[in-house]
Amino acid sequence: MNNSVVILGAGSAKPTRQLSPSGQVLQMCDKQFLIDCGEGTQISIAQMGLHIARLDNIFISHLHGDHCFGLIGLLSTLGMTGRTRSLTIHAHKDLQKLLTPLMEYHCQGMPYEIRFNNINPGKNEVIYEDRTLTVSTLPLKHKVPCCGFLFEEKQRLPHIRKDMIEAYSIPLNKIQEIKQGADFLTEDGRLIPNDRLTSPANRPFRYAYCADTAYYPRLAELIQGVDCLYHEATFTEQFASRCRDTMHSTARQAAQIAEKAHVGKLIIGHFSSRINDLDQLKEEASQVFADTILAQDRTVIPLN
Amino acid sequence: MNNSVVILGAGSAKPTRQLSPSGQVLQMCDKQFLIDCGEGTQISIAQMGLHIARLDNIFISHLHGDHCFGLIGLLSTLGMTGRTRSLTIHAHKDLQKLLTPLMEYHCQGMPYEIRFNNINPGKNEVIYEDRTLTVSTLPLKHKVPCCGFLFEEKQRLPHIRKDMIEAYSIPLNKIQEIKQGADFLTEDGRLIPNDRLTSPANRPFRYAYCADTAYYPRLAELIQGVDCLYHEATFTEQFASRCRDTMHSTARQAAQIAEKAHVGKLIIGHFSSRINDLDQLKEEASQVFADTILAQDRTVIPLN
Repeated sequence: MNNSVVILGAGSAKPTRQLSPSGQVLQMCDKQFLIDCGEGTQISIAQMGLHIARLDNIFISHLHGDHCFGLIGLLSTLGMTGRTRSLTIHAHKDLQKLLTPLMEYHCQGMPYEIRFNNINPGKNEVIYEDRTLTVSTLPLKHKVPCCGFLFEEKQRLPHIRKDMIEAYSIPLNKIQEIKQGADFLTEDGRLIPNDRLTSPANRPFRYAYCADTAYYPRLAELIQGVDCLYHEATFTEQFASRCRDTMHSTARQAAQIAEKAHVGKLIIGHFSSRINDLDQLKEEASQVFADTILAQDRTVIPLN
Repeated sequence: MNNSVVILGAGSAKPTRQLSPSGQVLQMCDKQFLIDCGEGTQISIAQMGLHIARLDNIFISHLHGDHCFGLIGLLSTLGMTGRTRSLTIHAHKDLQKLLTPLMEYHCQGMPYEIRFNNINPGKNEVIYEDRTLTVSTLPLKHKVPCCGFLFEEKQRLPHIRKDMIEAYSIPLNKIQEIKQGADFLTEDGRLIPNDRLTSPANRPFRYAYCADTAYYPRLAELIQGVDCLYHEATFTEQFASRCRDTMHSTARQAAQIAEKAHVGKLIIGHFSSRINDLDQLKEEASQVFADTILAQDRTVIPLN
């Protein structure tokens, strides 16, 4: 599976004809991660025919309704699909308090366990780690405690060159130690240095999700050089004052962060219902950062 | 405004490509009533561009998630639209307990009041009344306390005939008492009997919403002769055993209720995700009751 992000909802608090509240499935390193879960997230998943069998972790940026009202429905539906693998929700501790009574009432006898990882959105720290990647929190600047998430693939071992395996008749049981840096001693006693046998692995892939936030230049330091940045762009500059009041970003500001952080590409989303023509957002951002993509509901954006 | 029902979601517990959870706006007697509010209800409303400025009452049949998970999002969004008129939710008392902590957390400082009318789904009684109509509960047979709703227009006063107003020079200030049954005394002393001056008002319009329920023939007695019956038809007869286990109805059973109750027309909805071809449901119902309409998400069904 190639890395990609499935945009389930690119809207903000008030849904519109085109925009549902926030939610996206990041498909990375052959895993699936749900980031935010606004109302209708499970409906967009169903409408797209998206299979989420590999979804074991949900990350919630903050507890405004447009980022979490879809959770109870999704969790409840997953219980009907016969799921037995546990599922972890990474979120501010208040979510557990709010969800627990709902789950006790609506989700009795579900065949799978829900675990809560109560995170501190004010800290920049690793909150999830597995064999292939880590996820860290990115403190943001919003009206309530809120963080972004940085998904970082771990550095892979170098590739071993096929032509060298043949040239020096390297046996299978030596492959792993060569990948880990060992040189190779041939049967006739020659020592072949490691750098001749291997080629470097691909650079680890990195994805940053940053919503919701006011313009916050310090963020750029934490996401330097990510391959892809999803950054909220609730308003155009025309609504700059409203944007400040609500602690959101304009499309221009999102692009400024992308530029400062030297990211590979920028996806903007979390659009206000006040913006009639979404292309204006893209134009505004593109003037600062050319490689900008406009998030659209129920679309897949390839990330490789 | 003509009477109509706007189907926001015609699905059941598990959303599909075509079907969202239950929700509909009944537009009747120039008012709007939301009946059930599954997840995505406010999104369907936004997608249809439906204005719900006249919505003051929400009726929740029961507390399965596919009938109420959309409430918190809708209530929260209404708070952002500057609404100041109070809104009443008619539902089983547990809803208030479940919603209150959510509203306290997510809906602080909303400019309008939400009132709860805690209803008893096991009783057949009037739970709402205004100048033009009443709403009564219809006890149903489901896994949790559940009721339907009968919307009944009140008998209107007869029409006063325009030709009689001219023929007898009836002054404006006599119109109301003639409508209420008075005869009219002309200036030259003739007594014109009321039945010559008036024509009967239209028969009051009646709409029944019945979901979720197992086949329940006693229901037919309570909804005799309604102009339109919305009845759940979760399954086809092919799934009869699952239908019994989950206390739902087949399309055939829905049509049998419609036939027994001599309704004007039948709308079937609340379709299971297991039904691949929804036309099968319509065919099955139509064999018993010809005037059957298949509910479809985001469509308007005229009722006059």
